[in-house]
Amino acid sequence: MSDYIWKKASSAEVDGRVMRFLAGEDVVLDRELLPFDIRASRAHAQGLARIGVLSQEQADAMDDSLRTLARRFEDGEFVLDSRYEDGHSAIEAWLIESLGDIGARIHAGRSRNDQVAVALRLYMKDRLGRLARACEAIAAVCLDRAEREADQVLPGHTHLQQAMPSSLGLWWAGHAEAFIDDVALARQTAAWLDASPLGTASGFGVNFPLDRDGVAADLGFDRLVVNPQYAQNSRGKVELRALDALAAATSDLRRISWDLSLFASQEFGFVRVDPAFCTGSSIMPNKLNPDTVELLRSLHAVVVGARMELESVLSLPSGYQRDLQDTKPPLLRAFARGLDGLAILPDLLASLSWQQDRMREAIAPELHATDRANELVQAGLAFRDAYRQSASEMETLSQRTPEQSNEARRSPGGCANLLLDRLNQRLKSLQMQ
Amino acid sequence: MSDYIWKKASSAEVDGRVMRFLAGEDVVLDRELLPFDIRASRAHAQGLARIGVLSQEQADAMDDSLRTLARRFEDGEFVLDSRYEDGHSAIEAWLIESLGDIGARIHAGRSRNDQVAVALRLYMKDRLGRLARACEAIAAVCLDRAEREADQVLPGHTHLQQAMPSSLGLWWAGHAEAFIDDVALARQTAAWLDASPLGTASGFGVNFPLDRDGVAADLGFDRLVVNPQYAQNSRGKVELRALDALAAATSDLRRISWDLSLFASQEFGFVRVDPAFCTGSSIMPNKLNPDTVELLRSLHAVVVGARMELESVLSLPSGYQRDLQDTKPPLLRAFARGLDGLAILPDLLASLSWQQDRMREAIAPELHATDRANELVQAGLAFRDAYRQSASEMETLSQRTPEQSNEARRSPGGCANLLLDRLNQRLKSLQMQ
Amino acid sequence: MSDYIWKKASSAEVDGRVMRFLAGEDVVLDRELLPFDIRASRAHAQGLARIGVLSQEQADAMDDSLRTLARRFEDGEFVLDSRYEDGHSAIEAWLIESLGDIGARIHAGRSRNDQVAVALRLYMKDRLGRLARACEAIAAVCLDRAEREADQVLPGHTHLQQAMPSSLGLWWAGHAEAFIDDVALARQTAAWLDASPLGTASGFGVNFPLDRDGVAADLGFDRLVVNPQYAQNSRGKVELRALDALAAATSDLRRISWDLSLFASQEFGFVRVDPAFCTGSSIMPNKLNPDTVELLRSLHAVVVGARMELESVLSLPSGYQRDLQDTKPPLLRAFARGLDGLAILPDLLASLSWQQDRMREAIAPELHATDRANELVQAGLAFRDAYRQSASEMETLSQRTPEQSNEARRSPGGCANLLLDRLNQRLKSLQMQ
Amino acid sequence: MSDYIWKKASSAEVDGRVMRFLAGEDVVLDRELLPFDIRASRAHAQGLARIGVLSQEQADAMDDSLRTLARRFEDGEFVLDSRYEDGHSAIEAWLIESLGDIGARIHAGRSRNDQVAVALRLYMKDRLGRLARACEAIAAVCLDRAEREADQVLPGHTHLQQAMPSSLGLWWAGHAEAFIDDVALARQTAAWLDASPLGTASGFGVNFPLDRDGVAADLGFDRLVVNPQYAQNSRGKVELRALDALAAATSDLRRISWDLSLFASQEFGFVRVDPAFCTGSSIMPNKLNPDTVELLRSLHAVVVGARMELESVLSLPSGYQRDLQDTKPPLLRAFARGLDGLAILPDLLASLSWQQDRMREAIAPELHATDRANELVQAGLAFRDAYRQSASEMETLSQRTPEQSNEARRSPGGCANLLLDRLNQRLKSLQMQ
Repeated sequence: MSDYIWKKASSAEVDGRVMRFLAGEDVVLDRELLPFDIRASRAHAQGLARIGVLSQEQADAMDDSLRTLARRFEDGEFVLDSRYEDGHSAIEAWLIESLGDIGARIHAGRSRNDQVAVALRLYMKDRLGRLARACEAIAAVCLDRAEREADQVLPGHTHLQQAMPSSLGLWWAGHAEAFIDDVALARQTAAWLDASPLGTASGFGVNFPLDRDGVAADLGFDRLVVNPQYAQNSRGKVELRALDALAAATSDLRRISWDLSLFASQEFGFVRVDPAFCTGSSIMPNKLNPDTVELLRSLHAVVVGARMELESVLSLPSGYQRDLQDTKPPLLRAFARGLDGLAILPDLLASLSWQQDRMREAIAPELHATDRANELVQAGLAFRDAYRQSASEMETLSQRTPEQSNEARRSPGGCANLLLDRLNQRLKSLQMQ
Repeated sequence: MSDYIWKKASSAEVDGRVMRFLAGEDVVLDRELLPFDIRASRAHAQGLARIGVLSQEQADAMDDSLRTLARRFEDGEFVLDSRYEDGHSAIEAWLIESLGDIGARIHAGRSRNDQVAVALRLYMKDRLGRLARACEAIAAVCLDRAEREADQVLPGHTHLQQAMPSSLGLWWAGHAEAFIDDVALARQTAAWLDASPLGTASGFGVNFPLDRDGVAADLGFDRLVVNPQYAQNSRGKVELRALDALAAATSDLRRISWDLSLFASQEFGFVRVDPAFCTGSSIMPNKLNPDTVELLRSLHAVVVGARMELESVLSLPSGYQRDLQDTKPPLLRAFARGLDGLAILPDLLASLSWQQDRMREAIAPELHATDRANELVQAGLAFRDAYRQSASEMETLSQRTPEQSNEARRSPGGCANLLLDRLNQRLKSLQMQ
Repeated sequence: MSDYIWKKASSAEVDGRVMRFLAGEDVVLDRELLPFDIRASRAHAQGLARIGVLSQEQADAMDDSLRTLARRFEDGEFVLDSRYEDGHSAIEAWLIESLGDIGARIHAGRSRNDQVAVALRLYMKDRLGRLARACEAIAAVCLDRAEREADQVLPGHTHLQQAMPSSLGLWWAGHAEAFIDDVALARQTAAWLDASPLGTASGFGVNFPLDRDGVAADLGFDRLVVNPQYAQNSRGKVELRALDALAAATSDLRRISWDLSLFASQEFGFVRVDPAFCTGSSIMPNKLNPDTVELLRSLHAVVVGARMELESVLSLPSGYQRDLQDTKPPLLRAFARGLDGLAILPDLLASLSWQQDRMREAIAPELHATDRANELVQAGLAFRDAYRQSASEMETLSQRTPEQSNEARRSPGGCANLLLDRLNQRLKSLQMQ
Repeated sequence: MSDYIWKKASSAEVDGRVMRFLAGEDVVLDRELLPFDIRASRAHAQGLARIGVLSQEQADAMDDSLRTLARRFEDGEFVLDSRYEDGHSAIEAWLIESLGDIGARIHAGRSRNDQVAVALRLYMKDRLGRLARACEAIAAVCLDRAEREADQVLPGHTHLQQAMPSSLGLWWAGHAEAFIDDVALARQTAAWLDASPLGTASGFGVNFPLDRDGVAADLGFDRLVVNPQYAQNSRGKVELRALDALAAATSDLRRISWDLSLFASQEFGFVRVDPAFCTGSSIMPNKLNPDTVELLRSLHAVVVGARMELESVLSLPSGYQRDLQDTKPPLLRAFARGLDGLAILPDLLASLSWQQDRMREAIAPELHATDRANELVQAGLAFRDAYRQSASEMETLSQRTPEQSNEARRSPGGCANLLLDRLNQRLKSLQMQ
């Protein structure tokens, strides 16, 4: 392990077991953050040059060296492992190795605390962008199939009881709108946290006139986290909002997975999940189970747990506390698993095959009773009376077809008026943001 | 209890114990929602008139009657209690009582499900507005005191260990920025959920050409929840985002309360909480405890618990399930308690008196070591060397004053450059949204 | 409101809004605790008499007075409301009113903190006892129906896919065993927390030789919470364990409710929930929805939320903090709702009527494939080979009946060997504890 | 990767990305479970021999082979990695490789589902045993220092305000009792879940007369999970109880860490944490931070998050669902981190050095007011009057020493009567269980 910067001659030998406990998985987790840490280090060096703490030549040498590091890390030639205390130390060690004393000057005017804070903000902006794109892809598949299957009938349920005839169009469009809302949330969350904490050091500012605005602009941030104390106090708070946006999407993933899990049962028999997303049983030769659907359903639990883990760290007074290190694992774990799962959904959805006969057969005559009651209301009956009359004439409803019912459901958003254009338009306008 | 609309001659007598279990606290909770339900009912009636399901005369009669109900409810003359199944039934019963058969026609083209959905969206928009204003008020106090106490010294801590000299200005400005972020979050969350679910009935649309856009505009919504299935599936999801915005603020409330709880201890002795916010002990005559501070700290737990309660309901397939009724209590409970607590904070903050002598005395010479190291870096030393040299010359640091240190901390956001104007400007721009 | 004991001449007027925030729902919540607080007060008075701080006559007068209070509270003649700060103050006020100066002596050697601590322990012991009995009642119904319906066939599912023939006997016995485990957990949790904190005052002990052991024995406690600091620090910790025991039961309630919700759908069509547990729709005349089943399913969310609310309060240093007051509402809310729901289940279960034809028809020949594979294994094939051979001869499986399959499933616990006696015996042995 | 047992000629090629998603970290996690899976496999083989499905010779050959595997795994010669689908497949592959067709027969009468169920029960029993021993070790240190430092004074706090004189003896004994309760909870939780699910296959039993009781006894289980459905339904439920027991301990770890974090601040100045448990700052040369204390405080968050992650998976109908695979990561992660942290505490506690002068000085005269009030009560005053009189004579209290106050606090558990013998005795009786 590299020599710790804070190590003093007087300090006692730190027990290996304690060191391992303190380190946790930090250096492994930092693999996801290192590219962002490097980017921020490059901008920091240029900022130091602009205020004369580094010469431009020194800053440019650092820039070259850091770009090499980034490339070698991406190529797998530089491995971030337990030789280093964390990613921040690795960067400094690399610079010193390649540039000697000059490399050591990167640490002027910043602490590891603002390194991790800025790397995390950049990471979250990136991952929220990926989240938005993953939700866009899902919504696009849903809207496409909603259009193609707009008129195919589906028994509509409330309370898991059959309620009224409905359509695949309505079902697909409903899930599409869910993921469109998720795109909107991911994008606005990214905008909300689009502020640079870099240049706040350990929470009190530094006695350099750091060019924080310039560095923030170089890194693509919209504004500063102005206050150094808040740069620390916002740790965890900001991560929670990123997880909230992720949770909205994985919760919708759970919902559609629940539908598919039910619909794929023999008893419902509405849909067939492609075998590419299924596995067999080790003991029952007859089984082909939609495991992917089930693990997409349970995936949300990872985000819920991560959110609660992070939340539970934060009951603290102001200022950096080492506790905050424990906010990293849940954030990274949840985004890794969450984005993996969301990325699988479009193909799975595209591959579904519906058992249209089963769906149509399942619709019993009494499912037309609500539509009938509404007709009586339009004809002048009070709703209660119409409701009672309709309930009493169930047998006469058997002459209707589900298609007839759906075609009459013309209220905006209803089976015959899905407003897919409006949903498509909203999705497009969000993509352009 | 009023006669249930769904009650049929054939239905078995529903056992009282079961009815009480089903009802829960629903009718009491609906007291918070009733004004919104009435507003939505008035808009719904006008919408029915526009498509000819009601005559304009009938709709206007309903409007008069509903306005009377709203006024009487506000005045405490109409009490929503267990005579009614819920607020929705109360509205219908009122209309029938005052208008006879005409009153019953209000139920055309809508179900209780979209009544509660629209009332909840209106409620959340209202409460998020209150949340934004509460956070604005807190931020305003913090910014005001930051300006007035910009130069007063405070020992800065990390790891609960004294770290560097800091200032009350920096401390106040840090909390101000936290609550400004919370204003931004409350406002954008309100915008995100600003969509009308009214007119989606039980999740499949209706066979009336409802004027959903017109009704939404009348109610001040920005857009529709287009899809009827999503109108149901978004229940809980939307409430969670409202609670997320609340949680951001109550979490910041917890943070500042933690600071005050520590600072008010005899050992710190930095601040005196006004007795108006304290209580005594039943057994210890010498005590005057900052109970308000402690209950503001623990308040966040109510929001965390409510969030998790709501979250735990939502593992369900698509469509309305009665489970969703259980999303109401945590939402209402959290906003009631949360807004009460946030409303107390400005007065409490305004009344704090600092013990400036204690704060100044607490700052030992070694707290200047970081500033000294940074000076050496500016003079050309590598940071590691400066760090080591500074660590070795602690005794020479005793000639500095905390004020000198703070005045030199001119990096943007630092003690001598708090950028209060920028924070004020952002707060104002959010207020104008 | 009664005069606060801690109110001093010098204390500032406490603002009404602050007082309401501090009070919260405390006095209403204390209605559930008052009987236990009274019991503990009676024991405390006798204990004071035994060490001479009160005369026996005084203690007996208090005892009479407190028994009157308990009776009047039970009869609804004494109402605990906002005239009092909390239940503890109400008891003292009552004693002073009825006994004058002598009444005031009840407060010797104890604080409100240990009053609430002892009342909560007594409350939890009581509620855990109720929980155990509620689970016993459920398990008894399940075991009874398991015996009566041991041979009725049910399609067995894994992954929500039909897997093998199974039986109602196995289904009922499985739920029975779940609730038997819950009885065991409730009882051992009650034993774990069966310790008296009374006599620890505000966390440091008192300079009286209180007869803590005698008082604990009078109250039926098994042992002392020995240490006064731990009497405070265990607050919340103990409540969480009580909620854990409740959560185990409500989680099992959710599981069986899930089964019933699915089985009651038209697609499954396995079971009919008695109309006494159903309600209709406000808009769909054809519906009769198993709302009770759904609210029993979502009930667990109340416990999860309560647990997390309580958990989130507890990140604190040692000693009483006012934050701990916020541990009461989630505990009381969860037990109230949880026990109400569990109490409904036995009747609901007893009223279920199975659609045996549907269940039998649903079992396709390939569900016998696993049994066939196992036969081939017994005949000497390797399992993998048997698995493959069985998978290839599905057509020959159509001659089996589900009953034949189930009768052959004789492994302990299997369809033909449910070991109901063993389960009954364990249930009885737990009841005798 | 080994050939999947459920792979059929007809099955579609499973996409690599889907396979990676399905696998997750499963095979890595199974490294912790493999030794238990091997033990259970050995017992299962002997059980098959007893009922004649294997010859004794075959079972013994398996036993030899599995013992070799266990030894090689322990020595690091056999690595469980992504060559295998999971640990269960690895065991079967090993047996087939070493024994040919005979090895394949291990899978008779069991599924991977009961393999994982039994391995998890064995794992939890083992880890709960380690948890109990870790808490015993902590309690032992606390009791030892309580005895040695019984008379050293410490300012006692409530509301983070100084309240009364207290002692290190009382502080240590309080933490000791907390961890003794945790020992009790760990042991009774282990007893509660001490039941073998092995022999329930995929949830319906098998058509072999498996010797489940004999196998359970061989594996050291106290009883059976009787019902095959409950063997699946109890997954997650049982794991949550194990995490509850862990959470009780890590919550107490958080509490003592909070105390130490405060006490180690310059403002309190009560304790010095040994440098072996501290680290320096990368930017502030003057710092030596008690990072270990902080990470022990935040550790509980890992358990809270894991619990909630696991909890969130479980809203499911009866029977195995693939979702349940996601209960493993949080369980294993929480126990790994939790036991690591608890193991560090005894040494950290043993190394603390108290700043007795600071602690004594911090005790102001008014801290004697409660003791004085109690004396007046013993002398015959009503408590309220004594309380008021004591409050008025604060100046006369300055002649007392903290030691005098503590020595008078003789109520059981109080500063002068810590009842350490009773605590020691309870700890010993739990160790003997």
